[in-house]
Amino acid sequence: MTAAKLPAIGCEHPMAGIARRTHARVPPYAFYEGRKQDWRFSMADEVTLVGQEAEGLAARACRGAGATEPTTRSLVAATMSAALFGPPTLGFPHLVDYLDSFRDGRISTNPQPKLNRPFAAFFVSDADRGIAQLGFDQAFDQFVETVRHFGVAIFTQTNSYTAGELGYFVRRLAAEGIVGLAATNANAMVVAKPGGPAVYSTNPLAFGFPMGDGSPPMIIDQASSATAFVNIVAAASEGRSIPAGWAVDADGNDTEDPNLALKGALLAFGGRKGANVALMVEMMSAGLSGGPWSLDTPDFRSGDVSPGVGMTVIAMMPGVDQAARIARARTQADRLAGLGVFIPGVTGTSKKEQLTIPAGVHRRIAEFAANAPAAGNMSLA
Amino acid sequence: MTAAKLPAIGCEHPMAGIARRTHARVPPYAFYEGRKQDWRFSMADEVTLVGQEAEGLAARACRGAGATEPTTRSLVAATMSAALFGPPTLGFPHLVDYLDSFRDGRISTNPQPKLNRPFAAFFVSDADRGIAQLGFDQAFDQFVETVRHFGVAIFTQTNSYTAGELGYFVRRLAAEGIVGLAATNANAMVVAKPGGPAVYSTNPLAFGFPMGDGSPPMIIDQASSATAFVNIVAAASEGRSIPAGWAVDADGNDTEDPNLALKGALLAFGGRKGANVALMVEMMSAGLSGGPWSLDTPDFRSGDVSPGVGMTVIAMMPGVDQAARIARARTQADRLAGLGVFIPGVTGTSKKEQLTIPAGVHRRIAEFAANAPAAGNMSLA
Repeated sequence: MTAAKLPAIGCEHPMAGIARRTHARVPPYAFYEGRKQDWRFSMADEVTLVGQEAEGLAARACRGAGATEPTTRSLVAATMSAALFGPPTLGFPHLVDYLDSFRDGRISTNPQPKLNRPFAAFFVSDADRGIAQLGFDQAFDQFVETVRHFGVAIFTQTNSYTAGELGYFVRRLAAEGIVGLAATNANAMVVAKPGGPAVYSTNPLAFGFPMGDGSPPMIIDQASSATAFVNIVAAASEGRSIPAGWAVDADGNDTEDPNLALKGALLAFGGRKGANVALMVEMMSAGLSGGPWSLDTPDFRSGDVSPGVGMTVIAMMPGVDQAARIARARTQADRLAGLGVFIPGVTGTSKKEQLTIPAGVHRRIAEFAANAPAAGNMSLA
Repeated sequence: MTAAKLPAIGCEHPMAGIARRTHARVPPYAFYEGRKQDWRFSMADEVTLVGQEAEGLAARACRGAGATEPTTRSLVAATMSAALFGPPTLGFPHLVDYLDSFRDGRISTNPQPKLNRPFAAFFVSDADRGIAQLGFDQAFDQFVETVRHFGVAIFTQTNSYTAGELGYFVRRLAAEGIVGLAATNANAMVVAKPGGPAVYSTNPLAFGFPMGDGSPPMIIDQASSATAFVNIVAAASEGRSIPAGWAVDADGNDTEDPNLALKGALLAFGGRKGANVALMVEMMSAGLSGGPWSLDTPDFRSGDVSPGVGMTVIAMMPGVDQAARIARARTQADRLAGLGVFIPGVTGTSKKEQLTIPAGVHRRIAEFAANAPAAGNMSLA
């Protein structure tokens, strides 16, 4: 479909203004648990696209925002993966953040990632201020080959835009029958405990285990924060209090008043243990890659400076007999599901035939797409 | 000191009976957060030993329980490390579980671990029903050399007794300037959510990052359960209610009544996200090693069958310039500590000159030590 077919948009959702006012503080992972409350999903109008239409639109929008073909290919693949298999907000809604960032200079439109292997199974990528996915994609075949050869390998990267859907990286590995563990960080907005300053980003951790043919992989992908910032915005808008343990006020005190929380920061999930998970993610991401600590990372939604963050992905063979280990894990996942356990990535997951995109998001993307060069000059193949 | 010098013990602590009645359900990690409430710490009498005395006592006790020298060396080292740097309950108090298990046949006293490397950086150890530490120790030098050569390596093990203090394994690596991540499991006693059956053990995860000379390493080592089972025992004994979110009753319903919780199971920490951490640990431990799932693991404190569990340790170089990366991490840890963040393994940690052991624990260990062969026949060197 083309921009000419877009439905007319008459008004913004009433929460859009609030979200814009505060959205510079909301990293992508803040949307994870809040997708139903996300203002970008709250608009009454939605646009439905089949996969190819959505892919074509995303590609034209990337080109329209100035991205060169390697970046376009990598970002379209990650966007489609998140839209089809991950949290929908990290698909097309988050693509808008990428497009804005190409335009504003927070993401290089034509980066030249540099890959080094200081040790045989230790990859070091400099993303050259581009998207995180491009550096990973350029290393991917070699990385997978290395895992198959040595049994394990580690990919570290610095100097990229924030990672988008972190589960994407381990989902890619799972498709190769490889177990993956990934960590990344961004600008600080989570306190380690009530009373303290924000010291971590929402510090997501992702883990993927292949489940074999006929099943999507097990994909755990979760922020270390107790909730999404957007949920606090929603509570404030609707006059509801928030549960203790979600956020602190500007003085670092635990609060149940969302208006005070809006001036404060998020808490880690699960108290002290969750804060330790955030610390582990910080050390795995910034500590192992050499990327900036959350305290030193520029905001990924404002300004013209790349957040330049780090990411670490550890990839492992599931054992000597790869197929047997995967089948065994699949049997156990089925057994746990039969006992009522939610298996992330598997339970309730089915491939979508078409995508439903909030009309406001679609409109923003289509505006970028309208600036794309003529299609005849481009190929996504 | 010898058994002859032991103080006379006139009575058991009133909680000891309760704890014994239920202790078959309490895995070692259940004690982590409960050390102050641990019945084995509640006895009024304590015995103070300097390091060498404690080490000698532990060695004689292992020999007295029938352990051969390699097992004795490995277990004494792990016990001293936990006693000096880790949670004290996983030092000498947990040694009693090992001694009982040697006696009862749950741990082989003379195992012959077998080590394979199906891939160059992927170690597979069969612990031959011995202690987990022995298989790790026999691979350790080769494992460290491999990490230094390839940048990363993975150690998986099956067929061992439960791992004891999991932080020990990553502390060993940190002493070599290596970053470590470890996971293990045991018999099921944690539900994934209220209403469901127990499907995971307390599934601990440990992470170590070296901090360089002059500082102990950062060691995160925590169970995936919300609290220690022993805390529920204590609440029941003292007539206190327990917070929501700690445990469920026999029907799987969330309960604040510790007496109902005693018939039920523990909850994961941090709700759904903590349950996902438990699932990740399950897949890393049993899934990657091929060891038994928590649902299939025999109890480690009763019967004469080895729990035969699995463990996985991933070890990574902290980067190309090892010393610079460690120094950078140390600077950041100091910065976070200055902002009030608790850095596990570092904050408040100082090497103890002497050890204080509950008299009841000391008495049990001394009973085993009294059975040891004459010291002249043995060497721990």
